[in-house]
Amino acid sequence: MSSRKDFIKSAALLGAGTLLLPDKPDAKPLVNRTDPAPANWGDDTRLVISISMQFEAGGEPETGFDSPFPQNLQKGYTDLPAKTWFQYGYKEGIPRLLNLWDKYKIKVTSHTVAEAAKRNPDLAREIVKRGHEIAGHGLNWTPQYAMSYNEEKKFIKDGADIIKDITGQTTIGYNCNWLRRSKNTISILQELGFIYHIDDLSRDQPFLIPVNGRNFAVVPYSLRNNDIQLLEGRYFSSKQFGEQLLLEFEQLYEEGAKQKRQMSISTHDRISGTPAQVKVLDEFLAFASKKPGVKFMRKDDIARLTLSDKSALVDSNYM
Amino acid sequence: MSSRKDFIKSAALLGAGTLLLPDKPDAKPLVNRTDPAPANWGDDTRLVISISMQFEAGGEPETGFDSPFPQNLQKGYTDLPAKTWFQYGYKEGIPRLLNLWDKYKIKVTSHTVAEAAKRNPDLAREIVKRGHEIAGHGLNWTPQYAMSYNEEKKFIKDGADIIKDITGQTTIGYNCNWLRRSKNTISILQELGFIYHIDDLSRDQPFLIPVNGRNFAVVPYSLRNNDIQLLEGRYFSSKQFGEQLLLEFEQLYEEGAKQKRQMSISTHDRISGTPAQVKVLDEFLAFASKKPGVKFMRKDDIARLTLSDKSALVDSNYM
Amino acid sequence: MSSRKDFIKSAALLGAGTLLLPDKPDAKPLVNRTDPAPANWGDDTRLVISISMQFEAGGEPETGFDSPFPQNLQKGYTDLPAKTWFQYGYKEGIPRLLNLWDKYKIKVTSHTVAEAAKRNPDLAREIVKRGHEIAGHGLNWTPQYAMSYNEEKKFIKDGADIIKDITGQTTIGYNCNWLRRSKNTISILQELGFIYHIDDLSRDQPFLIPVNGRNFAVVPYSLRNNDIQLLEGRYFSSKQFGEQLLLEFEQLYEEGAKQKRQMSISTHDRISGTPAQVKVLDEFLAFASKKPGVKFMRKDDIARLTLSDKSALVDSNYM
Amino acid sequence: MSSRKDFIKSAALLGAGTLLLPDKPDAKPLVNRTDPAPANWGDDTRLVISISMQFEAGGEPETGFDSPFPQNLQKGYTDLPAKTWFQYGYKEGIPRLLNLWDKYKIKVTSHTVAEAAKRNPDLAREIVKRGHEIAGHGLNWTPQYAMSYNEEKKFIKDGADIIKDITGQTTIGYNCNWLRRSKNTISILQELGFIYHIDDLSRDQPFLIPVNGRNFAVVPYSLRNNDIQLLEGRYFSSKQFGEQLLLEFEQLYEEGAKQKRQMSISTHDRISGTPAQVKVLDEFLAFASKKPGVKFMRKDDIARLTLSDKSALVDSNYM
Repeated sequence: MSSRKDFIKSAALLGAGTLLLPDKPDAKPLVNRTDPAPANWGDDTRLVISISMQFEAGGEPETGFDSPFPQNLQKGYTDLPAKTWFQYGYKEGIPRLLNLWDKYKIKVTSHTVAEAAKRNPDLAREIVKRGHEIAGHGLNWTPQYAMSYNEEKKFIKDGADIIKDITGQTTIGYNCNWLRRSKNTISILQELGFIYHIDDLSRDQPFLIPVNGRNFAVVPYSLRNNDIQLLEGRYFSSKQFGEQLLLEFEQLYEEGAKQKRQMSISTHDRISGTPAQVKVLDEFLAFASKKPGVKFMRKDDIARLTLSDKSALVDSNYM
Repeated sequence: MSSRKDFIKSAALLGAGTLLLPDKPDAKPLVNRTDPAPANWGDDTRLVISISMQFEAGGEPETGFDSPFPQNLQKGYTDLPAKTWFQYGYKEGIPRLLNLWDKYKIKVTSHTVAEAAKRNPDLAREIVKRGHEIAGHGLNWTPQYAMSYNEEKKFIKDGADIIKDITGQTTIGYNCNWLRRSKNTISILQELGFIYHIDDLSRDQPFLIPVNGRNFAVVPYSLRNNDIQLLEGRYFSSKQFGEQLLLEFEQLYEEGAKQKRQMSISTHDRISGTPAQVKVLDEFLAFASKKPGVKFMRKDDIARLTLSDKSALVDSNYM
Repeated sequence: MSSRKDFIKSAALLGAGTLLLPDKPDAKPLVNRTDPAPANWGDDTRLVISISMQFEAGGEPETGFDSPFPQNLQKGYTDLPAKTWFQYGYKEGIPRLLNLWDKYKIKVTSHTVAEAAKRNPDLAREIVKRGHEIAGHGLNWTPQYAMSYNEEKKFIKDGADIIKDITGQTTIGYNCNWLRRSKNTISILQELGFIYHIDDLSRDQPFLIPVNGRNFAVVPYSLRNNDIQLLEGRYFSSKQFGEQLLLEFEQLYEEGAKQKRQMSISTHDRISGTPAQVKVLDEFLAFASKKPGVKFMRKDDIARLTLSDKSALVDSNYM
Repeated sequence: MSSRKDFIKSAALLGAGTLLLPDKPDAKPLVNRTDPAPANWGDDTRLVISISMQFEAGGEPETGFDSPFPQNLQKGYTDLPAKTWFQYGYKEGIPRLLNLWDKYKIKVTSHTVAEAAKRNPDLAREIVKRGHEIAGHGLNWTPQYAMSYNEEKKFIKDGADIIKDITGQTTIGYNCNWLRRSKNTISILQELGFIYHIDDLSRDQPFLIPVNGRNFAVVPYSLRNNDIQLLEGRYFSSKQFGEQLLLEFEQLYEEGAKQKRQMSISTHDRISGTPAQVKVLDEFLAFASKKPGVKFMRKDDIARLTLSDKSALVDSNYM
C-alpha cells in the first residue's frame, strides 16, 4: 500500500499527466480501490448523472449539414426531406424529451443554439419553465475554433444575448460545436461571465482549471453515452444505446463508493427525441433513479458545487 | 398546468415551429402528458400502423444503383450478380411479403415504380388483387428534385398512367426517390389529382397543408422503421430491425392514449422480402396486432380520414 | 383461390419476371401459402442447407487485397500483418471448420482458388478426403468479368486442371470472384464440363437455365448468410451472424412445408474459421440438424438432383 | 485415421503452408479432434489467456491521429477535444484497468509507447509496480515499416532506453504500430535482445521462428478480441465486445483439451479503460477465471516458456 501512496505523492507533482486527485493531504488515488474513502460529493451522493439535451434543430444551415440522407444532392438544391428530419427535433423530439424528464422529476441542461431558440422561442421558454438549464451552444452552427478572438467573442456574446432576450435566462455554461474550442474560448467565456465549459472528455468527474487567476469549472462531457456519436456516427441501435448506458452506469456506480464520479448522457433533439430512444431512456431512468445515492444534476449546479468545493480536483496545466 | 396552457396558446401563433395541435379551442399540447385527452382517430384507435411496401426491383437503371456489392466495377460492364439481388425482390420478396400481410389480414401501401410494374405487371396486379394500395413512386428511379416543372409533371403523370393501365388503379399518394421532392412537387401532385404525399419525417401523425387554397395531406414516412436505412445504410441485423420496431411501437402506443399517433414502417422488396426480415416482421405483427386499439391502415385511407377530420393538425407554413 | 391460379398461368408466360414455378399443370405458386402442397425435393426433405467453404487464403495477390488493416500502407511495401491474417485461413481456419463439419457429419462445397490449393496442396487433398466437394473459384483472385472469351476460358480451365492435378477431383461447379461473371462465363463453363454455377441471388431454390440447348443448373448463393458480407462488410458480430442464420432458417423451414426451399451459408477460411464463428456455427448446426426434414447437401449433389428433376423450375430468359 | 496421419506427415514437409505441429514423431495434427492428446502447456493448463494493455495516450502526434471526432478539422489547428479523448487514457483508463487486473490477480503485458511513458512516467512505474510487463511499442507513434535498417534500429533502441530509464524494466517483447513491421524488424529485435514479437495473427498458439540461427518467439496477437478493431473500427458496442470474448473463449477452451491454445485480448488505454469496457471485461474475467485450467500469462512468460519447450511448433519458412 505504501508504494501506492508514494506513487500518488509523486504523481501529484505532475501537470496534464496527473491521474489522481490533487496535491492535498487527504487526496485518495483513483488507482487504489482498496482504501476506504467516502464519496466526494459532500453528501451521501454516490453518482451524479448529468443529462444534456441539445436544442439545435431549426438552427442548422441551409446546406452542409449531416443527416441520414445520402450526401449526394446536387448543388443549388435544398434537401427538403432532410429539413423535415430536423423539424422532428422541435415538433416531436424536445416535447417528448421534456415529458420524460418530468416523469422522473429530472432537471437537465439544454445546450441551445441561439438560432434554434430564435426560430422556436416558445419552445426555448418552455424548457426554462420546466426547470431546466439553458446553456450556450453557439450563435449558430458555425464552428468557432478557427475564429479570431474578436469574432469568437462576438459569436458567443450574441448567442448569449439572444437567449437572454427570449428566455430571460443568463447562460453560464458552454458547449462548442462538436466540442471544438479555440485556444481563446475559455478565456472569452470567463470574461463574459460563464463559469464552466463541457468540451472535455478527459475525466469522469468535474474539475477546476485556473483561468487568468480565477478557477473555471470543467464539467466533462462524453462521446460514450452520446446519441449523435453512437446512433448517427456508429449506427448503434436504440437497444444498444440503452445497453451502453447501463454498463457505464454500473461501473461508475460501483466506483462511486470510493471516488467522485459523474456520468454524462447526451440527447439531441432530433436523435433522442424519437420514440425508440425515449423508450430506452425511460427504462434506464426507471432503473437508475431507484438506486440509492444517484443524483441527477444540471451542469450549472455541478459547476457551482465544484467551484465551492475545497477538495475539488484542480488541473493547473490545462491546455 | 396553466403555464403550459399559456405556452400552447402562444405556440399556436407560430408557423413552421409549432409543436402542438393547431389553434383550436380544444387543442391538446403534445408536450402535456398529464391532461386527460382522448385519442384523436375518431374512434377507439390508439395507434395507427401504416406499412409501406416499395415495389422497385426490376425498375432499377442498368448502372449507378446501390447494392451490397463492392462499388468498384469497371465502367462498361453490367454488375450481373447485383442484378440478381434486385430480381430477388420480385421473385421471392414481394410474394413472401404478400403472404405475410395476408396472414395478419393487413392492407399496405405499395409505393410502385412504374418501370418495375411494367416489367412485372402480373405482380403489380396481384398486389391490387390482394387488397393493397398502389401509390406513385416515380416513372423510374430518376431523382426528380432537379427537374423543371414540365419535366416533373410529365414524369409523375407518365408513371401514374402506366400503373393505371396495368392495374386499373388510380394512384393518389406519392413517394419521391429518396423522398427528395422539388419545390413544385406538391403542387403538381395536387393538379394531377393526388391527395397526399409521404416525403416528410417531421411528425408522428398525419397533418394537412394548404396547397393552392385546398388541403393536401401529409402522411409522414420514417427513416427509423425503414429497412433500407437500417439494414443497407446502417447495417442493422434483422434482429435489430425487429427490436427497433418494438421499441418504437411501445412508446407510440403509450403516447397514443393521449395523442394521435401513427407508426410508419417501410419494407423494400429486395430487402425486407428476405426470410430473416419476414420472420421478424411476423413476430412484430403477431405482437402488435393483439394489442387493443392498434389499427393497420393503407396510407390513402389515412389521407382521406385526415382530410375529413375537422380536428386535424394544419401546418400553414409548410415549406 | 381461382384468381391466384389465373395469376399463375399468366405469370408463366413472362420471362425474367416470373415469380412462380414454371408452366407445368401442377405448378404451385410461391405466393400461395394456403394450398396444400408437398415439399418438392422428391422425398421427405423440407429444407436443404448447403454450406460453402471458400478456400482462398494463400492465393491472394501481394497487394490490393482487402483486410481488416487500415488501407493506408505506402506503395512498395508488403502488408506483413495482413499476410498473417490470410495465413490464419489455412493454418487454423480450414482445419477448424473441417472438424466442425465432421462433428455433424456434414459434407460441404469448398470453392477453391487454384492458387490457394497450389500453395497448400495437402490441405486441398484433406478437404477431398473428408468427403467434401471441391468446386472452381478461379485460377487466382483476378476478377474475370472483364476478360475476353479466350482469356476467361483459359483462366477457368487452368484452375480446374490445377485442382484436378492436386486432388484428383474434377470441378463441376463454379463461383466467380465476388460472383461477377462475364456474359460468356456460363457458356464457357458448360463447354468445359461444368454443370452448375452459384453466382445468383435471385431465388431460395435451385433452378435450371437452358444454355446452348442443354440445361445448366443454378444453385443460388447468398449474401445474407455470408460471413464476408456480414462480418467484414457490415461489421456484424459473430453473435449477430448466428442470429441471422437462425432467423433465415426458421422462415425457410416454415416455407419448406409447401415449397422447395434451399438455404445457402457461406464460410470463408480466414473469417469463419475463427473460434467465435465456429462456436456460433456449431450452435446453429446443433439446432438445425435436429429438425425433421433438414438435409445438408453439397452443391454438386443439388445440381445433379435438379438436373434430373422433371418438376424443376426452368428460367428460359436468363440474362 | 491412418489417412490423416499420412496427411500430417506430408504436410510436415511444407513451409509457410503447414497447418500442423512440426515434424516431430509425436506431433498431433490440429485437424484431428478424435485422437486423444494432452494439452501442450506442460502442465494441466488448458487455455492460456494473454491480455495486452496498450499504453499509448499522451504519445500521440499533434495531428494526424484517429479519434472519434469528424476528420474535417481545418489544417493548422489542434483538435482540442480529441486531445482530451486521449488524456482519458492515462487519467482514467489505465488506472481503472490496473484496478481490474488487481481484482483478478492477473498480470498483463503493457505495450508502451516510449513517448507516452515519458509524458506520464509515474504511471509507467505504477504499471511495473503492480507486476505487469512493459513491452516495446515504438519510440512514438511513427509507423516503422518504411524505415531503413539504421533508422529502425535507432527507433526501437531509443524507445527501449527511455522505458528502461523510467521504469528500470528491460523490454524483451515488441509490438509495431498497427502491427506493421519491416522486413528487418525481427532481426533488429533479436540483435537488441528482444526474445519475441506479437505482430502475427496466423495462429492461436505461440510458436518459434529461426532468426539468424537462433529461435525467436512469436506470441500471436489478435484483431478479433481487440478493442481498437472492434469498437473503433467496427463500431461494436461494449456488450458485443463482451459477447465476442465469450464465444472465442468457449471455442478455444474446448479445443484446449487436445491442443495448445492461447487467447489474446487487447485493451487500449483510452478505449478499454472506459466504464462500459471495464464492466464487460470484469464480467468476462469473473467467468473465465473460474474455469479449471485457465491461466492468465504475461507475454514474456509465454515467450520464455515456448523457447524452452522442446515440443513447441517451429515455423522455418517465416516471411
